[in-house]
Amino acid sequence: MFVLGIDPGLSRTGYGVIEASGSVMRPVAAGAINTEPGMAVGDRLVELHRDLTELVVEYQPAEAAIEAVFVNKNLQTATTVGRASGIAYLVLAAAGVPVAEYSPTAVKMAVAGYGNADKNQVQRLVAMRLGLPEAPKPADAADALAIAMCHVQSRTLKAVGR
Amino acid sequence: MFVLGIDPGLSRTGYGVIEASGSVMRPVAAGAINTEPGMAVGDRLVELHRDLTELVVEYQPAEAAIEAVFVNKNLQTATTVGRASGIAYLVLAAAGVPVAEYSPTAVKMAVAGYGNADKNQVQRLVAMRLGLPEAPKPADAADALAIAMCHVQSRTLKAVGR
Repeated sequence: MFVLGIDPGLSRTGYGVIEASGSVMRPVAAGAINTEPGMAVGDRLVELHRDLTELVVEYQPAEAAIEAVFVNKNLQTATTVGRASGIAYLVLAAAGVPVAEYSPTAVKMAVAGYGNADKNQVQRLVAMRLGLPEAPKPADAADALAIAMCHVQSRTLKAVGR
Repeated sequence: MFVLGIDPGLSRTGYGVIEASGSVMRPVAAGAINTEPGMAVGDRLVELHRDLTELVVEYQPAEAAIEAVFVNKNLQTATTVGRASGIAYLVLAAAGVPVAEYSPTAVKMAVAGYGNADKNQVQRLVAMRLGLPEAPKPADAADALAIAMCHVQSRTLKAVGR
C-alpha cells in the first residue's frame, strides 16, 4: 500500500511516498513542488493543483497524510498554508483518497519518539529508518516522508489495538 | 461587464454578481454555497470547487473580488477560510478571471464611506445602492455584493486618475 505524505505550502509543498506492508516501510519517492513567488496566487494554486494531481495519478496512494497547519504560525502564514492545504484536500478527495491530519508534534513523536525533537534530528531519523544514505532534500520532502511515516505508525498502532 | 464578489468560507461561501458600466451598477445574482459540517473537509472543498466553477461558467465574470481573510480572525479560522479562498482562487485563475483582494475595512469604506460601519449598515447600504427592496439573504450574499461593489468603485477611482 502506498501512503502519500504532504507538507503543504504555497512557495513549496513537500511530498513523500512510502510503501507500507504492516509496519514495514520502504521509501518510493520524495520531492517538492515549488511555485514562483512573483506569480499571482491563483496561478500558483493552479500549478500546485496540476502537479499534485499528476503525483496522485502516478503513485495511486491508498491513503494520504497531511500536516495540520494551525500550530505556532501567524495569521498570514495560516491563510497561505491553508490555501495550499485546501488544494491538497481537493485533489485527494476528488481522487477518493482518504486523508488523515497530524500535528507537527505528533509527527515528531512518531519519528523521533518525543515531540520536541529538532528538525535536523527528525530528518536524520527519517533517513535512518527508511534506509536512505542521507535525508532527502529539500527539507520539505523529508518532512513529508515523516508525515507519511507517522500515518503508517498510527495505522499499525490502531491495528494492534492500542 | 460582470464582476463577481466572493466572501469565502468552508461552511458558507457568499457570492454576488454585479453588472458594471463605468460607475453604474446593477445586481445580477447573489447567494451562498453551503457545505455540510458533517462531511470530510476534502469532500466539502470538492463541492465548493464544483459550485464555484458552475457560477463562473454561468456568469462569465470579467473580473472578481475576494475578501482578504487575515484580519481579526484566529488561526483555526484563518486556516479554514484560507482553504475555501484557495479553492476560489484556483477556480478563477483556471478560468482566466483576474482577482483583486480587499480588506473588510476597504469594503466598508467603499460601501458605507467609513471603515467602522457595522454589518447591518453595510447590508442596508448594499440594498439601497443596488435598488433592492431589502438586503439579500443570507448575510454572506450581501457581503459578497459589497465586495463586488468595492471592486467596481476601486476600478472607477483608478480610471478617473485618483
